[in-house]
Amino acid sequence: MAQPLNFQQVILKLHDYWSAQGCVIWEPYNVQVGAGTGNPATLLRVLGPEPWRVAYVEPSVRPDDGRYGENPNRMQKYYQYQVILKPDPGNPQELYLKSLEALGIDPREHDIRFVEDNWESPALGAWGLGWEVWLDGQEITQFTYFQQAGGQELNPVSVEITYGVERIVLALQNKNSAWEIDWRDGITYHDIMFAEEVEHNRYYFDVADVDALKVVYDTYEREFGRALEGDALISAYDYVLKCSHLFNVLDTRGAIGVTERASYFRRMRDMTRSIAAQYAENREALGHPLMKMMDKWGVSLPEYTPTKPAAPTKAADFLLEIGVEELPAGDVDDVLAQLRASIPSWLDDLRLGYESVSVDATPRRIVIRATKVAERQTDEEFVAKGPPAARAYDADGNPTKAAIGFAKGRGVDVADLKVQEIDGGEYVTALVQNAGLPATEVLQDALPGLVASIKFGKTMRWNETGISFSRPLRWLLALFGDIVIPFTYAGVISGSTTRGLRPYGSPELDVTSPADYAKKLGEQGIVLSREERRATISQQIQALADEVDGIIPNDPGLLDEVTNLVESPVALRGSFEEKYLALPREVLVTVMRKHQRYFPVEYSAGKLMPYFIAVRNGDEEHLDKVTHGNEHVLRARFSDADYFYSQDIKKPLTTHLQRLGTLIFEEHLGSMQEKNERLVSLVEPIGHLLNVDATAVGIAQRAAHIAKADLGTQMVVEMTSLQGTMGREYAKLEDYPEEVANAVFEHWQPRYAGDVVPASLAGTILAIADKLDSLVGLFAAGLAPRSTSDPYGLRRAALGVVQILIAGKLDVNLADAIELVAPAQPIEVTPKVREQLLDFIQGRLDSWLEEEIGAPRDIINAVLAEQGTNPYRAYQGVLELQKWVADEGWETLLDNFARCVRITRNEPQQYRVDASKFVEVEEKALYEAYQQAVSSLPEDANIDAFLTAFTPLVPQIQAFFDAVLVNAEDASLRQARLGLLQDISNMAKGHADLSLLSGF
Amino acid sequence: MAQPLNFQQVILKLHDYWSAQGCVIWEPYNVQVGAGTGNPATLLRVLGPEPWRVAYVEPSVRPDDGRYGENPNRMQKYYQYQVILKPDPGNPQELYLKSLEALGIDPREHDIRFVEDNWESPALGAWGLGWEVWLDGQEITQFTYFQQAGGQELNPVSVEITYGVERIVLALQNKNSAWEIDWRDGITYHDIMFAEEVEHNRYYFDVADVDALKVVYDTYEREFGRALEGDALISAYDYVLKCSHLFNVLDTRGAIGVTERASYFRRMRDMTRSIAAQYAENREALGHPLMKMMDKWGVSLPEYTPTKPAAPTKAADFLLEIGVEELPAGDVDDVLAQLRASIPSWLDDLRLGYESVSVDATPRRIVIRATKVAERQTDEEFVAKGPPAARAYDADGNPTKAAIGFAKGRGVDVADLKVQEIDGGEYVTALVQNAGLPATEVLQDALPGLVASIKFGKTMRWNETGISFSRPLRWLLALFGDIVIPFTYAGVISGSTTRGLRPYGSPELDVTSPADYAKKLGEQGIVLSREERRATISQQIQALADEVDGIIPNDPGLLDEVTNLVESPVALRGSFEEKYLALPREVLVTVMRKHQRYFPVEYSAGKLMPYFIAVRNGDEEHLDKVTHGNEHVLRARFSDADYFYSQDIKKPLTTHLQRLGTLIFEEHLGSMQEKNERLVSLVEPIGHLLNVDATAVGIAQRAAHIAKADLGTQMVVEMTSLQGTMGREYAKLEDYPEEVANAVFEHWQPRYAGDVVPASLAGTILAIADKLDSLVGLFAAGLAPRSTSDPYGLRRAALGVVQILIAGKLDVNLADAIELVAPAQPIEVTPKVREQLLDFIQGRLDSWLEEEIGAPRDIINAVLAEQGTNPYRAYQGVLELQKWVADEGWETLLDNFARCVRITRNEPQQYRVDASKFVEVEEKALYEAYQQAVSSLPEDANIDAFLTAFTPLVPQIQAFFDAVLVNAEDASLRQARLGLLQDISNMAKGHADLSLLSGF
Repeated sequence: MAQPLNFQQVILKLHDYWSAQGCVIWEPYNVQVGAGTGNPATLLRVLGPEPWRVAYVEPSVRPDDGRYGENPNRMQKYYQYQVILKPDPGNPQELYLKSLEALGIDPREHDIRFVEDNWESPALGAWGLGWEVWLDGQEITQFTYFQQAGGQELNPVSVEITYGVERIVLALQNKNSAWEIDWRDGITYHDIMFAEEVEHNRYYFDVADVDALKVVYDTYEREFGRALEGDALISAYDYVLKCSHLFNVLDTRGAIGVTERASYFRRMRDMTRSIAAQYAENREALGHPLMKMMDKWGVSLPEYTPTKPAAPTKAADFLLEIGVEELPAGDVDDVLAQLRASIPSWLDDLRLGYESVSVDATPRRIVIRATKVAERQTDEEFVAKGPPAARAYDADGNPTKAAIGFAKGRGVDVADLKVQEIDGGEYVTALVQNAGLPATEVLQDALPGLVASIKFGKTMRWNETGISFSRPLRWLLALFGDIVIPFTYAGVISGSTTRGLRPYGSPELDVTSPADYAKKLGEQGIVLSREERRATISQQIQALADEVDGIIPNDPGLLDEVTNLVESPVALRGSFEEKYLALPREVLVTVMRKHQRYFPVEYSAGKLMPYFIAVRNGDEEHLDKVTHGNEHVLRARFSDADYFYSQDIKKPLTTHLQRLGTLIFEEHLGSMQEKNERLVSLVEPIGHLLNVDATAVGIAQRAAHIAKADLGTQMVVEMTSLQGTMGREYAKLEDYPEEVANAVFEHWQPRYAGDVVPASLAGTILAIADKLDSLVGLFAAGLAPRSTSDPYGLRRAALGVVQILIAGKLDVNLADAIELVAPAQPIEVTPKVREQLLDFIQGRLDSWLEEEIGAPRDIINAVLAEQGTNPYRAYQGVLELQKWVADEGWETLLDNFARCVRITRNEPQQYRVDASKFVEVEEKALYEAYQQAVSSLPEDANIDAFLTAFTPLVPQIQAFFDAVLVNAEDASLRQARLGLLQDISNMAKGHADLSLLSGF
Repeated sequence: MAQPLNFQQVILKLHDYWSAQGCVIWEPYNVQVGAGTGNPATLLRVLGPEPWRVAYVEPSVRPDDGRYGENPNRMQKYYQYQVILKPDPGNPQELYLKSLEALGIDPREHDIRFVEDNWESPALGAWGLGWEVWLDGQEITQFTYFQQAGGQELNPVSVEITYGVERIVLALQNKNSAWEIDWRDGITYHDIMFAEEVEHNRYYFDVADVDALKVVYDTYEREFGRALEGDALISAYDYVLKCSHLFNVLDTRGAIGVTERASYFRRMRDMTRSIAAQYAENREALGHPLMKMMDKWGVSLPEYTPTKPAAPTKAADFLLEIGVEELPAGDVDDVLAQLRASIPSWLDDLRLGYESVSVDATPRRIVIRATKVAERQTDEEFVAKGPPAARAYDADGNPTKAAIGFAKGRGVDVADLKVQEIDGGEYVTALVQNAGLPATEVLQDALPGLVASIKFGKTMRWNETGISFSRPLRWLLALFGDIVIPFTYAGVISGSTTRGLRPYGSPELDVTSPADYAKKLGEQGIVLSREERRATISQQIQALADEVDGIIPNDPGLLDEVTNLVESPVALRGSFEEKYLALPREVLVTVMRKHQRYFPVEYSAGKLMPYFIAVRNGDEEHLDKVTHGNEHVLRARFSDADYFYSQDIKKPLTTHLQRLGTLIFEEHLGSMQEKNERLVSLVEPIGHLLNVDATAVGIAQRAAHIAKADLGTQMVVEMTSLQGTMGREYAKLEDYPEEVANAVFEHWQPRYAGDVVPASLAGTILAIADKLDSLVGLFAAGLAPRSTSDPYGLRRAALGVVQILIAGKLDVNLADAIELVAPAQPIEVTPKVREQLLDFIQGRLDSWLEEEIGAPRDIINAVLAEQGTNPYRAYQGVLELQKWVADEGWETLLDNFARCVRITRNEPQQYRVDASKFVEVEEKALYEAYQQAVSSLPEDANIDAFLTAFTPLVPQIQAFFDAVLVNAEDASLRQARLGLLQDISNMAKGHADLSLLSGF
């Protein structure tokens, strides 16, 4: 085997390769950039109509990725190799894969995958769709179709390919760490980059003068403005990049809070937008000189000349394959659901008979098949409505132009038109008789619409047709039996060619029939059926787990995702060093599942084994190599986690907490450390409010002191989803009692939709206190969520409060809770803010009751009107009211209650009931019954108790109204009667506003 | 012929080439740098003992080189290709030339020259010696042996090769402008770089906010300190680069004055020094990891085992050739002068007879030849002095150890020692008889010392021997007849191989004898004799001029220089566009002579012709190509000049003057504009002081208003030597009268040693006023020159004042002049400063009198003691006094004058002469003679007049002292006598202090 290329050879080889593809070879930019995208050769040149092809290395600086050289893959500066192809050459994935081959990466020996990755840069006003390219599980490239940059829609779209040079060389040279790779013979990456790495880390993390650099940022922003004003665009752009780097440094120093961050992003985005607009204008003014390169860099879509397909003579199987670049896993599911629902009716609408329909999808193809489709459409006959009769014939009874036109349009003779009454008017009608067309013609006509009908959550453009799809559509195969159905969509012309499996080089395969198609794809190992893929994966991973006596925790979501990432699944089991098992399980599982889509393996006892199971796309060949590669990647990831872990546990949580002094929670509300202090101060009153025992309050107290501390740890900075998890872990390591550690963890709960609420009372206190603190403070700061933006996750926080109170059966009036929390805030919480917040939380409660309980709207409204500030009671009330409403006596009950309400609701005042005035026996009886009902009501009565108490009144009310004229002439009598009815009406107060119920 | 490489191919080819030479291929730095040297891959890696080889492109930013894209070769950003070889591989020039061949540059088809260029960067604390490499007159590469960086002596020395990529591609593609070169097929340099160029120019020249960026500079300097302190070396270094770029921007905006500049340089140098020191320490701490590369990158000097050469049997010719990399032209002359003076005595000292000696030198070789050198040394016999006899023998008369040792050392028997009286002492002596050794052995022994004895103004080290020479010594050839004389020097072992002409690839040629050597070199076209080369060049250029009926202005300096730039001179004539003749002659001539070493060609009338004559090194082959290349270069240079010219004349001089408001003359003394204003205000008083007529003062007035204006023009910013020249030119264009324009020019005179003084009175006024303004102001600001530093050129200014006054016969007391100039200064000029300045100017006058007049020290001292503040009178006085001193009566005269002085000089006071007291006839006669002498003295008497008046007193004085006892007992008589003698002594006051003369 040849010596693998060294670092510099890889770069030179890529230069040669892309130079041969017509690219301008460019140099890294002389201003620090976070990525090759920042180089004006990308960010500016992708704008406007001019074509462009460029390739260059870009040492990319990401201060916060620094690990003081202790991570094998991660550093503050690494080398990107960046390629821009504008417009899309039509085969960028293939060009890319060939470049890997040029480097010595044989696709047969590896698992190369295109895994959904959508890119967005708010600072650059840019986004695009594409993939991470995985080499044996390692992300080696970002591949993006640029849709927007500098706030401008891109037309043409640019293909951006960003290689991670270190990772590629690492794989080529089979090294365990980037530091070990050969830069050239005798010289390692470590020799050249290590000292610099550590030094930069020190500066970015520990040294940079935050205040001074903020001032420089402001200065540079002004210089940006001066330069732009002075028609010095590129100088202005340099300042955008410099500001961006300064921001990164400040951010790495932990000097930027949430709001401030948003503001910086806005400032950078505004700068980029101005630049982009000006650049477009400048190029326009120059007459777009690079248009001259269209003959070299442009792409001509194939000419499509419509031809009629042969008419079939007998029923046959129909096949449509839509060939695409790798779809996101979720889109595979979406398209399946849509088409499975729509295809039968679509065929019906086309009047094409068939035996059965199947829809399949893999990441690279969407396949619709129908068996025994009729060779012809069925004929049809129907009456078509034409113009009004009055306009169809003139005074002489001759057909007007309208009638003639209608007849012609419908293909009937004018003489055959009739006049019919339709919906009360007189219209000309025609009896239309459509003879069925050959199925092939029908399909030819319908297929473009079918493809166009597919909807995706996110779509992208790629070529000059401007058509959007989930990912570029690259081929179409349409067969009716052995007849090709020609049509065009998105610049692609259908044919009878499919493409095989990626690892086999996606060979073009001619297909003679739907049956042949199935055979050919089968030969490629492609499993078209999602269900079949899922089953085989499930079986394979199980078998691999069995081999080591392990079990795979149930994770249907992961299984679904993996199923949609491969066409030919082959599971493999890799192992990792036992030492990493010392890391918290959640850390390992998060890395395996979220980052790598690996299945973890457990001992039967639930403890993790040092194995993982991955699923490659391909076959068994070189499986060991692929396994080895995946193992490497996981090792690197675990090493990263291990690094954080070891760094974190060097200091106690209280020290991490101190670092939060520089992490701004919100400008007006101080740092995260201050928030944590508020949390400590709230434990006592909230505990009291929740009526919790002293032990729990004590635990909560201890936990409160370190509740937010893990936000200052590197593990959490890196993997936010581990907040609380790491707090618990580190607390245990510091010998905090288990309950305290758990409360730290629980105070974040519920963390996401479907998450549980805190199990312990201590956790409950903290969770409530923390969430209310955020809600009260941020509302007071004017940061209530808006329709499109909820950067602080206040909707979730409010919902969490609701869920916790309900789950904990905690009878708490939120108005009281807010009273307790408000004084702790460093800013004023006005009555209006409190009201606004109560409304907001009630809104969450309202939705929750509807979605979770499925309660009818009127019942929710009725209960919330009276108990909206007490989620638990409201919840109970809704449940109870639901039962009552379902009861057969409900109508009578409500009706009688309603009579009391209706007759009194316009009275200007509440009358005192002077029982001595009563004259009729029925009113006396009602009065007595009311007295008894009221006295029987327990203090904490909810709907149930109220209605139980009310029920005995029903016959008395009925009798009352039958016998008594409320509006007695004697005012005092009338008022006594009205007063009684008012009192009865008021019995619902605090329970429900029954007038909001339907039927009232 | 193959398609020439395009821009990106040239870079890739260089990557391939240097990668094959073992270089690390590196990337441009992500901070703006002015040159590849700033990249830490150079500036840091050249420090310390570790080897290093690296190659990379560096887009280099020089804001003030921007020409808004209007120059064919010059832009604010261009691409350097940088190579570092550490240590020197022994053949870096050859490696470099091969790289050019790899690019398709055939050395036979071009004139490739190594032209002295010594590099120094005060900001980087770095310097080195080397060359510009010229390709057909175009500088395409800087080639430097780095001697120092960051203030540290470099060991090993690094070879730095810096290609100018654009210029190489331009030559390869035979384009007229960098903008036209192909970056790749279809894409020009213009397509990619032009818009950016213009935009950056706008920012740097017109937009950048000076005050704001100065603040950023300060901030970054502090961040540098923090980073260094925080052990974040590379981050600190980045800030040095950022500061450097900021400085360049500020400088381009014209925002930095002379002192401020010096201060910025000092700050940058200090930063770089700290960095370098810390880097060296860090590498040391790491154990110099790259020492492992010594086996790949190191160089082993050849082993030298001394062997005795054969003894010749008869007299033969001796030849020593010292082969070097291209010597600076001046060094060729120096070495010739030294060796021509020393070789005869060197041979004599070696006791080697010879017939004749010749010494020759070209840029690449120093050649010493002697004919018919004796085959053996002559024998010698002499008496050697040993220890004192008393110590040589003990009490018993036996020889002591001292005597035995002495005898042994001298090679004689102890018994043969004798005792002799030498200089009054008794010593042991030995009669030493040295038999002569074979000449070859004698030379073997002496040659290393001979080579080492050669002295150069500036020397450099290159290899591990640490030996210094003008440029690296690469081969040694030493023959005695046909016998090789083996020796070693600077790591080179002598042999019988020479090297041929560079354009022929410097072929190695074996030489059998001195005669063969001459023949072989002749075959290569190499003209060893400087005189012969000079003559042939002179003849060739004359012939070429004759062909176009032109004449070449006499310029021996240029002829000398060109003679020393080539080994095989071939003159060529090129032409340039007539349109450039519209530029001022001085501009064209400066460009041709100074920048290109071309001979201008004139019509007989003195006007320039559109031709130039260059001298290539090589032969007639491809002369047209070489000519074409040279024409291109000159066109580019003229185009640059033309650009400046056209820019300059768009605005009147007064506008240029306004721009000088931002050009600081000196912090305390304001801007150049303010200096110009002072100049205006000084014309009137200085004119008056010089006693000049009103017309001249009027002219001076007008000229004063625009005197400094050309400093604001681009031409002068670019070619400082044209200051005044352009002012005159532009003034004429603006229709100022000729006299005014001339005065503008003259006010700078004398500009350099040997320059003339202003011819006109107006020019004289301005020149005096300007120089005195600088002197007075800068002295007052505490900026008097120090021994090592005179940044404002005050020595020259003071000397200029002296020269002008003397040449103009202007009887001016400088104390009076300073009185006039001082009030115009914006700062106080204390009496002490005035005194200090007068001393300083007198110092210049003193030197001038000594050097220019060759006056004896005592005469100068005597005159300056009395007339030091009036240069013209002092000069006259010295001349006069010289004559008197040479006269035969001088001794008597001085003696008599001295008697008067000596007898009175300790008197406590000046006595009044009461003539009535005189008693003796002699004293009465003397008194009378004195009266007469004084009354005969004209008011403006100088030495001549004074001594003429004094002469008649001589006999009277003689008689007086013979007859009169001065110390009479009568006090009043005594005082009258003393008073008379005091009066006579005082006659010299204001003329000379005769007591300082020798013989007094």
